[in-house]
Amino acid sequence: MKVLVIRATGHHGASVIDGLLEAGNFTVQAFVRPESMTKPAVENLRDRGVEIRECDINGRLAELVKALDGIDIVISCVGTLQLDQLSLVNAAKKAGVKRFVPCGFITVAPPGGIMHMRDLKERVYNHIKQLRLPYTIIDVGWWYQVASLRVPSGKVDYVAVGLAEEIVGKGNIPSALTDLRDVGRYVTKIIIDEQTLNRMVFVYNTVMTQNQVYDLIEEMSGEKLERNYVADESIHARVAECRALAGKDATDPVKLHPLFLAEYKLSWGVRGDNNPDYAKYLGYLTSKDLYPDFEPAGFRDYLKSVFEGTAVVSIGIIG
Amino acid sequence: MKVLVIRATGHHGASVIDGLLEAGNFTVQAFVRPESMTKPAVENLRDRGVEIRECDINGRLAELVKALDGIDIVISCVGTLQLDQLSLVNAAKKAGVKRFVPCGFITVAPPGGIMHMRDLKERVYNHIKQLRLPYTIIDVGWWYQVASLRVPSGKVDYVAVGLAEEIVGKGNIPSALTDLRDVGRYVTKIIIDEQTLNRMVFVYNTVMTQNQVYDLIEEMSGEKLERNYVADESIHARVAECRALAGKDATDPVKLHPLFLAEYKLSWGVRGDNNPDYAKYLGYLTSKDLYPDFEPAGFRDYLKSVFEGTAVVSIGIIG
Repeated sequence: MKVLVIRATGHHGASVIDGLLEAGNFTVQAFVRPESMTKPAVENLRDRGVEIRECDINGRLAELVKALDGIDIVISCVGTLQLDQLSLVNAAKKAGVKRFVPCGFITVAPPGGIMHMRDLKERVYNHIKQLRLPYTIIDVGWWYQVASLRVPSGKVDYVAVGLAEEIVGKGNIPSALTDLRDVGRYVTKIIIDEQTLNRMVFVYNTVMTQNQVYDLIEEMSGEKLERNYVADESIHARVAECRALAGKDATDPVKLHPLFLAEYKLSWGVRGDNNPDYAKYLGYLTSKDLYPDFEPAGFRDYLKSVFEGTAVVSIGIIG
Repeated sequence: MKVLVIRATGHHGASVIDGLLEAGNFTVQAFVRPESMTKPAVENLRDRGVEIRECDINGRLAELVKALDGIDIVISCVGTLQLDQLSLVNAAKKAGVKRFVPCGFITVAPPGGIMHMRDLKERVYNHIKQLRLPYTIIDVGWWYQVASLRVPSGKVDYVAVGLAEEIVGKGNIPSALTDLRDVGRYVTKIIIDEQTLNRMVFVYNTVMTQNQVYDLIEEMSGEKLERNYVADESIHARVAECRALAGKDATDPVKLHPLFLAEYKLSWGVRGDNNPDYAKYLGYLTSKDLYPDFEPAGFRDYLKSVFEGTAVVSIGIIG
């Protein structure tokens, strides 16, 4: 199986590369833009056995089709703003790619006006379906890496990303959490599974409320956390404000980033979308049902590494 | 089981009413607007055992919720232009309806810019999903009643609707056909089936190309048919023209009707969307897989009734 990863050096791309190399039964390729060929991250991939192919996915269709020749599976981790997935989809169809994994990798949310990020992805999904390209959409819940937070002593500031320092509503909405490092391990199972062809799959490690996360961190750190509750109405107001600022068909990342963050909280924190039951209602298969023997990293273990100072610091911009 | 049919006197509504009454194990209700309470069609429904309830689905939400009290299943056959399904969906959620069948009842087509009619329905489907209302979407293929056509002698003009008098492309695209009268019979099975909850279901009787339809009609009538082939490019051009005329968010039926007809031909005739394989790819369950023992009316039998002069004349505007 020849698997191509697009944007192999992003968060999800890196996890997918790790998973594929660990599994050992794939030939792994990555497209790299001409101007990035000499970057250390690319050199690192090559050293680890990834075949690096110079290719700009914004380039000419014929060249993209040629570059995809012989590829069985494409895993696109382009991130939300890179809508050039559309030409990638066209090329994959022409090249006879057997399975295309578009860039999903977000929380569970319905399309149609809840999360702009989700709706941007829906355009790509619809394009895939209109071309009848074999596909699998994979969503992953909320990362452990963004669900944990600072403690007063400051000793875990080295992994702090500032996304959990407020509690949405009363903090009692269950939401699915996944270790980013497990995403790639799930992906290696999904992409060779006939059951997941032309389906949506939701992978997650555990389900917790924000209060439970805070309780666990207090227990493990021995420190008392301030609980900054933000009313549902405030989240709604924030979303409305961000939408107004971003405008109708916004493409400016500076405006979109706060919108995405606000709508994430609306979706998983207020609406409670990000859980396996709702995923199943929306038509997803789930990792727990598909792979009951899969042993995901526990959130407690992740936090342990955080407090021991050994957690990996790699989280930047969401998406 | 208490089943409410919305717009029970439309084409699909009438077929659904027939199916429900024939099945005999449902209490059947219909909403009728105040101004239509004394119409003969309504009187006819009452005579056949349908409970008639005066209710305007464009009315106040609280009244709509009250009117839905005790209803287990809602089957909406409102037609494409009646987007008031959104308040109906809101009311159904509040009233605790156990299954909502929104107005689907079209051919298989992907959302996202192929068929405006499909995309209007998608808005309703997304609203349902955002509310987590239990639902089943049912699409039905192309009716026998609109797939057949005039013969030179004029003897079947009494059922002619003028939708099959041109052949799209070379006429070799397989497309699913269904007897409108079977739709209700399929629906009675689907709405009490746990497998179909929160799923899309595609019901169809047979799959034929336009050339096969023409061949069969020639064979049965003994008359030679003119074959008026219209190139794919002409259908594309017609669609582009209708879209330009209709504008972006068109609601004017006079502009939408030709658009819908042109896009139907684009979808089933050029793209070949309307078939069971593509339906399955899009996530539909199919009537053949779900109910292998169901005996659908044959197209040959339908045509026989057409040539014998006993076919029912009831087809007006599509949708």
